[in-house]
Amino acid sequence: MQNNDLEILRHSASHILAAAVKKLYPETKLGIGPAIENGFYYDFDMSEQLVPEDFGKIEAEMKKIAKSNQKFETFTRSKAEAIRYLEEQNEQYKVELVNDLPDDEVTFYQNGDFVDLCRGPHLRYSTKLKHFKLLSIAGAYWRGDEKKPMLQRIYGTAFTTKEDLVAHLAFLEEARKRDHRVIGKHLDLFSINDEAGSGLVLWHPKGAHIRHLLETFWKDEHFKAGYELLYTPHLGKAQLWDTSGHLGFYNENMYSAMQVDSQDYFIRPMNCPFHILIYKSTLYSFRDLPLRWAELGTVYRYEKSGVLHGLMRARGFTQDDAHIVCTAMQMEGEIKRVLEFCLDMLRKFGFSEYKIFLSTRPSQKFVGEKERWVQAEQALENSIKAFGLDYEVDEGGGAFYGPKIDVKIKDAIGREWQCSTIQFDFNLPERFDMIYIGNDGEKHRPFMIHRALLGSIERFFGILIEHYNGAFPVWLAPEQVRVLTVTDKQNEYARIICDKLVSSGVRAKLKLQSAKLGYKIREAQLDKIPYMIVLGEKEVENGSIAVRARDNKILDLTSLAELIEIIAKKSRHKE
Amino acid sequence: MQNNDLEILRHSASHILAAAVKKLYPETKLGIGPAIENGFYYDFDMSEQLVPEDFGKIEAEMKKIAKSNQKFETFTRSKAEAIRYLEEQNEQYKVELVNDLPDDEVTFYQNGDFVDLCRGPHLRYSTKLKHFKLLSIAGAYWRGDEKKPMLQRIYGTAFTTKEDLVAHLAFLEEARKRDHRVIGKHLDLFSINDEAGSGLVLWHPKGAHIRHLLETFWKDEHFKAGYELLYTPHLGKAQLWDTSGHLGFYNENMYSAMQVDSQDYFIRPMNCPFHILIYKSTLYSFRDLPLRWAELGTVYRYEKSGVLHGLMRARGFTQDDAHIVCTAMQMEGEIKRVLEFCLDMLRKFGFSEYKIFLSTRPSQKFVGEKERWVQAEQALENSIKAFGLDYEVDEGGGAFYGPKIDVKIKDAIGREWQCSTIQFDFNLPERFDMIYIGNDGEKHRPFMIHRALLGSIERFFGILIEHYNGAFPVWLAPEQVRVLTVTDKQNEYARIICDKLVSSGVRAKLKLQSAKLGYKIREAQLDKIPYMIVLGEKEVENGSIAVRARDNKILDLTSLAELIEIIAKKSRHKE
Repeated sequence: MQNNDLEILRHSASHILAAAVKKLYPETKLGIGPAIENGFYYDFDMSEQLVPEDFGKIEAEMKKIAKSNQKFETFTRSKAEAIRYLEEQNEQYKVELVNDLPDDEVTFYQNGDFVDLCRGPHLRYSTKLKHFKLLSIAGAYWRGDEKKPMLQRIYGTAFTTKEDLVAHLAFLEEARKRDHRVIGKHLDLFSINDEAGSGLVLWHPKGAHIRHLLETFWKDEHFKAGYELLYTPHLGKAQLWDTSGHLGFYNENMYSAMQVDSQDYFIRPMNCPFHILIYKSTLYSFRDLPLRWAELGTVYRYEKSGVLHGLMRARGFTQDDAHIVCTAMQMEGEIKRVLEFCLDMLRKFGFSEYKIFLSTRPSQKFVGEKERWVQAEQALENSIKAFGLDYEVDEGGGAFYGPKIDVKIKDAIGREWQCSTIQFDFNLPERFDMIYIGNDGEKHRPFMIHRALLGSIERFFGILIEHYNGAFPVWLAPEQVRVLTVTDKQNEYARIICDKLVSSGVRAKLKLQSAKLGYKIREAQLDKIPYMIVLGEKEVENGSIAVRARDNKILDLTSLAELIEIIAKKSRHKE
Repeated sequence: MQNNDLEILRHSASHILAAAVKKLYPETKLGIGPAIENGFYYDFDMSEQLVPEDFGKIEAEMKKIAKSNQKFETFTRSKAEAIRYLEEQNEQYKVELVNDLPDDEVTFYQNGDFVDLCRGPHLRYSTKLKHFKLLSIAGAYWRGDEKKPMLQRIYGTAFTTKEDLVAHLAFLEEARKRDHRVIGKHLDLFSINDEAGSGLVLWHPKGAHIRHLLETFWKDEHFKAGYELLYTPHLGKAQLWDTSGHLGFYNENMYSAMQVDSQDYFIRPMNCPFHILIYKSTLYSFRDLPLRWAELGTVYRYEKSGVLHGLMRARGFTQDDAHIVCTAMQMEGEIKRVLEFCLDMLRKFGFSEYKIFLSTRPSQKFVGEKERWVQAEQALENSIKAFGLDYEVDEGGGAFYGPKIDVKIKDAIGREWQCSTIQFDFNLPERFDMIYIGNDGEKHRPFMIHRALLGSIERFFGILIEHYNGAFPVWLAPEQVRVLTVTDKQNEYARIICDKLVSSGVRAKLKLQSAKLGYKIREAQLDKIPYMIVLGEKEVENGSIAVRARDNKILDLTSLAELIEIIAKKSRHKE
C-alpha cells in the first residue's frame, strides 16, 4: 500500500468514523483504525452490538463532521503525558499501544473534539471526505489474539470521486453475487459441514465431476510435459517430520499427533518428505536427472477458525504439487519449462493477465550456500526475462529455504489471486542428505524445485467458480445439455434425444416435470447449463431439435449430430 | 477346513513334529499344534532360536518316529489329574489350556513316549505319515496376545502321496517367486518405508502409473455405468464417528484421536459417513433415486504390525467404494447391475473363475427390521441366480448391519482372493436418519448398499503383480517399448524412433548404454517390457525396425506404424 492521496483520505475517514461512533456511543473505547487496501476500518469496544442497520445513522454523523470542515492538527506529547491523558479518557487499548512504542515522544492527531494517537498523515480539512460508505462489521480480537477481548470492526471505503465510489460498490456487489460459497450451494457443487469438521470440503457429484475433469486435464498435461506421477500417504511418523524440520518450523500449522504402536504420527501438512523418501530409495546418477515427480497430494493444515473461508482457505486441500530434482546445469532449462507450462495451463482457464514476483534471499535467516542462492535467483530471473514477462523483485522476500517466483492471475472482474509458485529448496535436500552420482563418479547434492501451478485444487475451484460466475465453459460444465419439452407429448422423443447425447459422451439430462416451458428454461438458466434443447410438436414432426444458449438465444443449429460435434470439439480444446 | 483324511494326517504330523522337537530339545515347552489350511504348525517355547537349517535334523527325527510305527492312543483324565500331570511335565501352557476348558474330563493322545492334550482324531499308526516337509518358522505370541511370551511356530505340510507333496512344494516355490514385495522392489513399483510409517505405501513412478491407468479405467467404467463421483476428507470430527457408531463397534481399528480446536478428530477408517452427509444436504424424492455415488476413498485402519503384509495388508489403502441409495422396488435391479458390473470388471484382468458367497442374517446380534433383511437377502440371491452363477450360502454369516455377497477370484496360479463385496447396510441409514420423499408424499427410509469391486487399490495391485508375475499386459505396462541398439552407431536413429513412439502416446524408453546387446535384451526381459525394438545396421539402412516380444521371440512386424497401432488397440481394449 503506497502512501498516496487515497490512503490519506481513507485514513482520515477512519478517524471521522471513530469520531462519529464516539459521538453516538460515548462509552466506546477505541482500538486501531488504519487505511487498508480498498478502504479502511476501525475497531471499537462497546456494549452495544452494532448491526449494518446502524450504518445509516453513523454515516449521517460522519457526513455532519466532514461538512463541518474540521482541521486535522497534529501535536506531540511525552510518553508519560500521553499515557496520563489516555488513561483519563479511559482509552485502555491506546494506553497499551503507547506502552509498546519505542520512542519517547508520541504523536497525536486532532479533528474537532476528536483526539487520536496517530502518526498521520491526514487530510488538512475534513470537507475533502465526500464519497464514502460503511460496508460491513465483523468481530476482531484485539491484536489478533484469541485470548484478548473481541472488538467490533467496522469496514468502510472512501474515494476522491463519486464515480469511483459507485464503480467500487458495483464491483463489490458483483463480487458478492459471485461468492463461490453462494454459487456452490445453489449449483450443489460442494459443502463444508460442521458435523464433518471445520474447513473440510465435501465434493458433491457436480463439483466432483468438475474436479475429475480438472485433474484429468492436469495429469494429461503433466505426462505430455515429461512428468511422472506419485501417490504417497496422508500421514507419517514423527521421525519423518523431525528430519524434515516441519515439527520445528511448521508446528503451528500441523494437527496434533496420533499414537500408533506408541509412536507419534502426524497427518501431513506437505507432500515433500514422502517424495524425498522415494528419491532416496534408489541411487540416481546424473544420467537419470532431471526427475519431475508430480502428485495431487491432499494435505491438512491447521488454520485458525476465524480465517477459514469456504474453498479459498480450508484446512484440507489438494496441492497440484511437483518436485523437480536436477543438476546445476539443468536448473535454468527446468525453470523455463515450468514457467511456460504454468502460464499455458492458466491460459486454458482464461487467465491471461499475470503479475510475476521474484523473491530473493532474506538478509538474515536463511539456509544453504550463498553461491547456490545466487545461481538459483539467476535461473529464476533469466527464465522470466526469456519470456519477456514483467516482474517485480521482492528483495529478501524469499522463504528461508530458497528463492521463488510467485504468479498472480487476474480474474474476470479484475481481482488478483496468487496461485502458482516455483520455489527452490536448499533445506530438505540437506536435511535428508539427497545425492546423485555425477559424471565424475562423485556424490553431488541435487537442486530441488517445488512447484504448484494451480496452487490447491480446492482454492483454484473456488476461484474458477467466481471467475466464471458458475457458468462453466462447456468442457467443465457438469451438465452440458438439458433436454426440455413443451408438453408431455414430446416426452418420448426427448428421451430418445437425451439417450443419444449420453451415449455420444455428452453430459445431458432430461427434465420432464409438467411445468410451463418458461419456468423450465428459467431453471436451466439459473443452473447455468450451456445448452438447452427445447422440443415441441414441430421438432417431433421434423425429427429436428431447437437449441438455445445459456442466455436463452436460439442457436442456428437444428441437427443433433452438429451439436454433439460442437460439444466434442469444445471438450477437446478445453473451451 | 473339513475333518477329512488330510486334516487327520496333518494333525498327527504336528504331534510327530512336537515329539521330534521334544526329543532333540528336551527342555522345550509346548504351545498348540493344529492342522491348518494346506498344512500344520506347532508352537514351542525353547531357549534355542531355531532356524530353517535345523529343519533337516528335525525332519530326520520325525521320519524315525513315523517309521517306528507308533500307535496313536487316546485316554481321558479328570481336570485335576490332568493339571497335576502337566505340572509335573512342566507344561505350563497346557496347564493354562486345561484350566480354561469347561468340561470335567480332559482328553489326551499318546504316540510312543509323547503325550499331548488333544481332542483328536488322529491316524491309527504313525507309518501313514510319509510325505511331509517343514516349511518355515515364525514368532507367534502365546494366544495371539502381544503381552504374552513369543513362541517359535514351525510350519509344515503333509500329503497322502508324494506327487501331491511335490506339486504343492512347486506351487509354494512359484508363489514365492511371484511375491509382490520382491517383484515390486525389482521393478521399482512401490516401497513401504519404516521412516514414513509401517503399513503405509509409497507409490513409485512406475507403480503410480499403473495405479493411474487402473483408476482412469475404473472411473470411465463407473461413469458409463451411471455412477457419479465424490471426493471427501480423510478425517472427521468425533461427533461424526459417534453418530455412525464407529467409535463404538470399530474403535479397535481406528487410529487414536487428534485434537483440533479442543475437539477430537479421527483419520477415517471408512468413507460412508461423508457420503451420507452429502446425501443429507439435499432432500431427495423417489424420482431422484437410485443414487450411485463412488469414491476412490483412501482410508486408514490400525492393524497389528504382525499381520501387515506388503500391499496385501496395509494400514492405509484406497477403497474403490460406492454407495447406492435406492427404494425397495429398485433394490434387486441395482444388485443385478452391480454384480454384472463387478464380474465384467474382474474379467478385464483375466479373472474369469469366481466363487460367490451369500452371507445371511446372524441369528442373534443384528440391527434393522427382519422384513428388510428378508427382502435384501432375496434380492441378493435372485441376482446371483439370474446370472446362473454357483454360490454358497453362509447362513448367519452376514455383518450385524446387513446381508452381503462376497466374490472370490482365482489367480493365474490358482490362489483365491476375496476382493469384491456387495453389502446392505441397515445401520447407518437409521443412525443418520436418511430419508427420501416417496410418491405418497411421505418420508421413507431408503435402502443403502455399500460395494467395492476391486476391494482396495493397493491390495488389488498386489494381487495383479502376483497374478501377472510382474509382466503386466500392454495397456497397464508402465514401459511398453524399450528401444535398444546393437552399437552406438544406431543411437541417432534410435532416438528418432523413440521420439516417434512417445509422441504417438506410446510409453517408450531408450537405453543407450554401451553394453552388449545380449545384456540389454536380458535386462529388458527382467524388467518385463512387452516389446523390445532392436536397431542394427540393417534397420538404419532400410528405415525399418526389428521387434521382439517379452520372451525374446522376433515378431513378424517391421513397420513402426504397425507396432503403434497394435499398442493403441491393446490399450483401447485393455489387453
